[in-house]
Amino acid sequence: MKVLILGMDGYIGWALAQNQLAIGNEVCGVDNFSRRKHVDEVGSWSALPILTMEKRIENLKKEFGDKVKFYKGDLTDPQFTNDIVKNFQPEGVVHLAEQPSAPFSMIDQQHTTYTQSNNVIGTLNVIYAIKNFVPKAHLVKLGTMGEYGYDHGLDITEGFMEVEFRGKKATIPFPRLAGSWYHWSKVHDSNNIMFACKLWGLRSTDVMQGVVYGTRTHEITTKENFTRFDFDEVFGTAINRYCAQAVIGHPLTVYGKGGQTRGFLALVDSIQCISILLKNPADEGKYRVVNQFDEQYNVLDLANRVQALGNKKGLDIDVQQFENPRVEKEDHYYKADHEQLKKLGFKATRHIDDEIGIMLNDLIEQKDRILEKKDAIIKVIKWKGKSAPEQIQKTPNL
Amino acid sequence: MKVLILGMDGYIGWALAQNQLAIGNEVCGVDNFSRRKHVDEVGSWSALPILTMEKRIENLKKEFGDKVKFYKGDLTDPQFTNDIVKNFQPEGVVHLAEQPSAPFSMIDQQHTTYTQSNNVIGTLNVIYAIKNFVPKAHLVKLGTMGEYGYDHGLDITEGFMEVEFRGKKATIPFPRLAGSWYHWSKVHDSNNIMFACKLWGLRSTDVMQGVVYGTRTHEITTKENFTRFDFDEVFGTAINRYCAQAVIGHPLTVYGKGGQTRGFLALVDSIQCISILLKNPADEGKYRVVNQFDEQYNVLDLANRVQALGNKKGLDIDVQQFENPRVEKEDHYYKADHEQLKKLGFKATRHIDDEIGIMLNDLIEQKDRILEKKDAIIKVIKWKGKSAPEQIQKTPNL
Repeated sequence: MKVLILGMDGYIGWALAQNQLAIGNEVCGVDNFSRRKHVDEVGSWSALPILTMEKRIENLKKEFGDKVKFYKGDLTDPQFTNDIVKNFQPEGVVHLAEQPSAPFSMIDQQHTTYTQSNNVIGTLNVIYAIKNFVPKAHLVKLGTMGEYGYDHGLDITEGFMEVEFRGKKATIPFPRLAGSWYHWSKVHDSNNIMFACKLWGLRSTDVMQGVVYGTRTHEITTKENFTRFDFDEVFGTAINRYCAQAVIGHPLTVYGKGGQTRGFLALVDSIQCISILLKNPADEGKYRVVNQFDEQYNVLDLANRVQALGNKKGLDIDVQQFENPRVEKEDHYYKADHEQLKKLGFKATRHIDDEIGIMLNDLIEQKDRILEKKDAIIKVIKWKGKSAPEQIQKTPNL
Repeated sequence: MKVLILGMDGYIGWALAQNQLAIGNEVCGVDNFSRRKHVDEVGSWSALPILTMEKRIENLKKEFGDKVKFYKGDLTDPQFTNDIVKNFQPEGVVHLAEQPSAPFSMIDQQHTTYTQSNNVIGTLNVIYAIKNFVPKAHLVKLGTMGEYGYDHGLDITEGFMEVEFRGKKATIPFPRLAGSWYHWSKVHDSNNIMFACKLWGLRSTDVMQGVVYGTRTHEITTKENFTRFDFDEVFGTAINRYCAQAVIGHPLTVYGKGGQTRGFLALVDSIQCISILLKNPADEGKYRVVNQFDEQYNVLDLANRVQALGNKKGLDIDVQQFENPRVEKEDHYYKADHEQLKKLGFKATRHIDDEIGIMLNDLIEQKDRILEKKDAIIKVIKWKGKSAPEQIQKTPNL
């Protein structure tokens, strides 16, 4: 199977590329390296050292030869996107090539408009390229559970819900009540993709993904093929950030009460899910939505869990509750369906505690790299804030 | 009251500017003249001759002096948008400055991405400028009834609906199931504005507007202050297009069965509604949605109505059902609430038949202008089509 991976240089993209090659697929990757630039812009880098894409591809070619290709370019360029799809003729397209950080989108006006323009226009070009050149290809688009939002108090379905209203029944999209400009950009994408499936008969799976964590997959077994691992406030997600904080003795930064409940999934199981979806494409004309997470935790639970497991390794860890910079409920009802992937054969293979143990081991070896960028751990980008420079606060002395 | 009119050169914008000045408000207008350019691009022009903005402002200044200002510029330029809002300090902002045509957005990839980028980024810059400089100002955003879509079979509410789902109750946004890339751009805008109200406490009224028709308002009584009137397939809306077709003996172009039901409102009453909303702003932090239309008709009824009224004026008119270029249901349930504007004092003042009579009189005088651009009446931009050049079909001989 020919798989086009858009955003192959990213956290999931690089892990997925190795996995797809390992199972015998042909892979073409695309990236504009914006993630490396943006993480640098906020004063950080990947905690795990990563190779340049040139080196990465060089290494892969030793094992997989012509089965792997890579092109540098930007999906907001329609010519580039059309050319890639036309020349490679993919059967599956995995679209991970978006600005993926909520805090980044909240920094200021420029970061908001960049995020929405980059994500919405890039995705429009991707669906046009598929329609133009490979209309039967299956688009696997990475979205986020955050598209549904956390304030409505309803059980969350997988994309659609049946309602009865004033005596009439209908199946409608589950309401989307996102909490950042980034999350709204993903909602806009979801709406556009749903329309493209109806309009042109494209087939797509929109993956509402929980928070992904971890350092290892079946293919990532040595330091040479590490995927990136962000721990800064802007690009690091909850568990990953806590683990990096733990190894340098930084207090774990819980926002507010810490009752915010989210779905979580280990990196290796996230790759398993995407691989299953590629093998089981949506029907022609079908816009399929799946919720992709394994277990749900609130963020204070998670911090306590990292603390307990870190203590066992001799790490001295504080959990500290910071003033919440976000506009969000810190305590809310949360129950979300996640049955469709299981029906397709997905089985979670990792327990969160084991994965945290592995992460801490990997990160302890990178303590110096994390310390060198410790100022990026707390930047406090406030959801209601005015502009980035006014928002940057000092990290506590360690 | 200081009213900023974004898109002041357009059909509603120019009528609104004259109205707001007439009732004693101070008006600042903005436009980039993209509408004139786009109508020219599709081979047409306004059936009613319109003055340049320079002349328009010159005329207005004779009567209103410094109470009227105009700046040429583009809302996708954040600096321009910030400067306008900062310097004028409006109390009300009416945002009409969007690419407003569904067929235009369906022409090809470039027109799709242009429409979504122009509308979404322009609106983001507007809400940032309001937040930055006049956070108490009331944003009146023109949306469309088409945001809700016509396929769900539910009674349409004004923006939000109460549902019970798996034993839990919630008020959720009414589902949006738009039918073109343009309509989706308006949904993206609505979502962004809803979020801005929650995030920053802005106040906004999102106007889900029906199809607006007519040539005259209380202020538009002479040819010198005509507002534009589009009759081409791309920018002309149903009744306006039919009336222009009627005066040159072109068959009235009904798509498919013609059972598509929409809400309609005379231009003069559309202006009345916006004026009422400006006088009755939404509360701080409130995202208010109103449905703005008077009566609903299906498009075949409308054509028959124009035919009957035209016949009385001695016009020989055929109604012709064309293959529907759109992806839409041609027969569907349609019932939409429109109570909120009435509660604020809105009363429709025109009957559609009277208004059609006035329009036909105005257009009969412009028969030569319409004939000169008759090739723009049927271009048949297909919703599933490949690209514009392949789509342009010949207009029948007259």
